[in-house]
Amino acid sequence: MELKLISDNKTFNGSQRVYSHYSETCKCDMTFGLFLPEKASFKKVPVLWFLSGLTCTHENAMTKAGAQQFASEKGLALVFPDTSPRGEEVPNSPDFDLGHGAGFYLDANQSPWSEHFNMDTYIKEELNTLIFRNFEVDQSMQGITGHSMGGLGALNLALKNQDQFRSVSAFSPISNPTESEWGQKQFSAYLGEDSVLWKDYDPSILLKKHGFPTKLLIDQGKDDNFYDLLRPGSLSDQFSANKALGEFRYHNGYDHSYFFISTFIKDHLEHHVKILLD
Amino acid sequence: MELKLISDNKTFNGSQRVYSHYSETCKCDMTFGLFLPEKASFKKVPVLWFLSGLTCTHENAMTKAGAQQFASEKGLALVFPDTSPRGEEVPNSPDFDLGHGAGFYLDANQSPWSEHFNMDTYIKEELNTLIFRNFEVDQSMQGITGHSMGGLGALNLALKNQDQFRSVSAFSPISNPTESEWGQKQFSAYLGEDSVLWKDYDPSILLKKHGFPTKLLIDQGKDDNFYDLLRPGSLSDQFSANKALGEFRYHNGYDHSYFFISTFIKDHLEHHVKILLD
Repeated sequence: MELKLISDNKTFNGSQRVYSHYSETCKCDMTFGLFLPEKASFKKVPVLWFLSGLTCTHENAMTKAGAQQFASEKGLALVFPDTSPRGEEVPNSPDFDLGHGAGFYLDANQSPWSEHFNMDTYIKEELNTLIFRNFEVDQSMQGITGHSMGGLGALNLALKNQDQFRSVSAFSPISNPTESEWGQKQFSAYLGEDSVLWKDYDPSILLKKHGFPTKLLIDQGKDDNFYDLLRPGSLSDQFSANKALGEFRYHNGYDHSYFFISTFIKDHLEHHVKILLD
Repeated sequence: MELKLISDNKTFNGSQRVYSHYSETCKCDMTFGLFLPEKASFKKVPVLWFLSGLTCTHENAMTKAGAQQFASEKGLALVFPDTSPRGEEVPNSPDFDLGHGAGFYLDANQSPWSEHFNMDTYIKEELNTLIFRNFEVDQSMQGITGHSMGGLGALNLALKNQDQFRSVSAFSPISNPTESEWGQKQFSAYLGEDSVLWKDYDPSILLKKHGFPTKLLIDQGKDDNFYDLLRPGSLSDQFSANKALGEFRYHNGYDHSYFFISTFIKDHLEHHVKILLD
């Protein structure tokens, strides 16, 4: 598997790189960002996956979340995958919330999506293998976080792969997609009308079913422009009922933007490092 | 003068806003970003102007520099002006380094530029007045910084308006435009062929001529992709010869990007706050 280096910028004494590679899983070229702290030049470091939301590429969180500062201090690598397969050969829709930029971190089984839209397997298997084969990153110390659709992806991947992801957090995740237009529309398209399959990608259902061995951290702005579509209550009610799950924090005045994420990213990195290095 | 609020995002307990207004100086609508820390809701706060580089709008530094975190801690307001007049009625060139996004923070006197391209007066007079009339920001505590073309703008504005700007710093500024293609091309177009006028916008010449009452801080990446066009040596030689000017720091491995700026923005905010609150 050949990795092509697209860019490499020194930041906070570490290295913020962008790579592309051909993905067998998504049947197209895929791009991702990778931050390696200085520490990764002499020892294996833990890694945090950051999954982005609708319309984003690998670039949004990499340039706007402000994560590198704390990742550098803590000696943590960061991976910023793209949010879907892309390219002329990849099916798309005119809507921003289906097709390119809207992979929902699932494996599609419906035509025309199923050939390329396999972001679940791409993240947990193909890109995972690629990262650990090529960089000084410790496969036994993986955490995962994300924003909005990426928060959904982070929760779903962690809850179903608890041996692989030891820590999980999320920013304003799509929390209950089986009961929301952000979910029903995409699951119909990608997974078909049998809603039993949808449950395998609903964080609220999966958390109730599986729990998680380490505490979760979820942040949600009270002034989020997409509050009703996200359905945060379906998750936060579980946290209220069971303190052992961790923290679901609501924040007055904060919205859905990267200005919200950058405000709380430090807390998330500290959360992951504490668990991963414990 | 009517201010139109375009957006308002809570971040680090403060408020990151974008406004537009009609500019009498630039004869078009202008857009700017304004960060107000929480402290500005109950007392006047000092302010730092951040002038951006070629091709940027008000948005780049506002979303990528990571300045709000420290501005919030220090109780500092931030203004992010646009880099030129814009709009269909504003002359442009097909080149990225002339016309829209390339105002060079000067007052043009040549046709067709002179009607709109008056960024020097816009920053120091019109936008200044507008900020202090409308927000809880202390006009007697102004610092200025910038990146690349904006570093040139920050240095030029401060060096020539020492009563107005009490502190100045820059990231990889265009340091000696009268001797560089980044300068000669634009000065010819905006100011005409009489190179005597050009000297009034050359930081290296102005620093030698005027000095500055407080110490300067300038950061420059050694791996800057535009190193030769910036001509940093013309400034750093003066700092080497006269330690009282402050610090001109070269950084190995760093380039011209916002990944460089975000790494050192904390130092710059501390530099300004120390002088402004002294």
